[in-house]
This record gives sequence, structure tokens and C-alpha cells, in this order.
Amino acid sequence: MAYPGNVYSVKCSARDALTLISGKWVMLILPALAEGSMRNGELMRKIEGISQKVLTQTLRQLERHGLVSRVDYGEKPACVQYSLTRVAESLVSTLAALDRWAEINFPELDAARVKYDQENGSS
Amino acid sequence: MAYPGNVYSVKCSARDALTLISGKWVMLILPALAEGSMRNGELMRKIEGISQKVLTQTLRQLERHGLVSRVDYGEKPACVQYSLTRVAESLVSTLAALDRWAEINFPELDAARVKYDQENGSS
Repeated sequence: MAYPGNVYSVKCSARDALTLISGKWVMLILPALAEGSMRNGELMRKIEGISQKVLTQTLRQLERHGLVSRVDYGEKPACVQYSLTRVAESLVSTLAALDRWAEINFPELDAARVKYDQENGSS
Repeated sequence: MAYPGNVYSVKCSARDALTLISGKWVMLILPALAEGSMRNGELMRKIEGISQKVLTQTLRQLERHGLVSRVDYGEKPACVQYSLTRVAESLVSTLAALDRWAEINFPELDAARVKYDQENGSS
């Protein structure tokens, strides 16, 4: 089956789309928003280890590419809500499936790493 | 439903597993190997834009965590084949689904970016 793009081609914009959606922060942010719209502070608390700078940059790239909508309610204190767009809804189940795969299979990956490091003399 | 791990927790190894399997090069290498085992040179040709250094490092991390098996046939000229492990087989269809999503939806992301940049004064 032919698709409009080809992620294996460096000249195709499909590669850029893959680069955007394949980072771990996107894999955490978009599935978090699948639970409902969230504010910056809620995302910061939900996604342990993300810095404010990286969260802001990632949200801006997602908004720029139409995957997240940002609604500023203009209240005091400021209330900005982030939510998934329609096109992101078609992506988020696949990202969530990757998260679930990691949550189920990490012990096997950990065990393989320990074995590899023992056999190859690294710690 | 509860899973053994939690990718949202920075202390959980599931986060490390997600870090390993996210990233565009893994999304390109593992689905390429789903077609059958490949040599280094075949992967270099298939995955446009990857450097030898990044390919080598990524394959080593995948091998270390039990997602790729490396078989050295010890011939002259050297013949080293990379292939998916059993655990990687359970992952690769999800990665391929992300690739297909990028190949189908990149025009919509591109259009959103053009519109955003026009509205926000960046080029």
C-alpha cells in the first residue's frame, strides 16, 4: 500500500513529522492530554522530570504543528489550557500503546542490559 | 488497568525503556528490520540521513537492551547481520504505525505550521 510520504527519505516532510512525534516528551504530553485539557502546572506535576523550558518548547512545537490547541482564558491569575486537536486524537492511541509497551516490557529490557553488561565487561 | 511500570515516574525504569524506544532512529531501524535481517550497509542505505556513528550507537543500545540481535558470521569480508529479537517483534508494529501516521498526516502538520508562522510573524 502506498502512502503520500516516506519516512525513510530525508527529503520528505514525513520524516520531519516523525521527528516531531517520536520524542519521549511528546509520548508523555499527548497521552496526558488524552485525559482532558490541562494547564501548564498540571502537566509539570504529571510528567516528572520535565523542565519548564522543555515543556514550554515542546508545547509550542505541538501547537505550531496543529497537534495541541492552546486556549488563553485571559483571567487573573492567568488560565491557559492545552488540549488535543482532532488530528492529535488520531495519533494519541498509538503513542499510548508505546507507553504501555514500555510499562510492561521494561523488566525484560533491564534484564537484557544487565546480562549484556556482564558479558561485555561494562557496569 | 494497572501495569508493572509508570512512564510518568522519573524513578521507574519504564521511563528509561520509553527513552530507549522513542526517538526517530529507533522508529526507522526497528521497522526496517521487520522486513528481515540486514547488514550495516543495508541499514545505512535504507535510512537516509543517518550517520554511521549514530547507527552504530543506536544498534548497540538496542542490542544491549535485547531488542536487536547481532550475529557475526566471521567471514572475510566481514558479515554482521542485525535482526529483531522476540521482544522487539511485539513492539515493531506499534513503531510502524507511528511511521505510517507520519506518512499520512504530514501535509496537515505542514499546513498548520505555515498558518502558525504566518499568524505569529516567524518564517
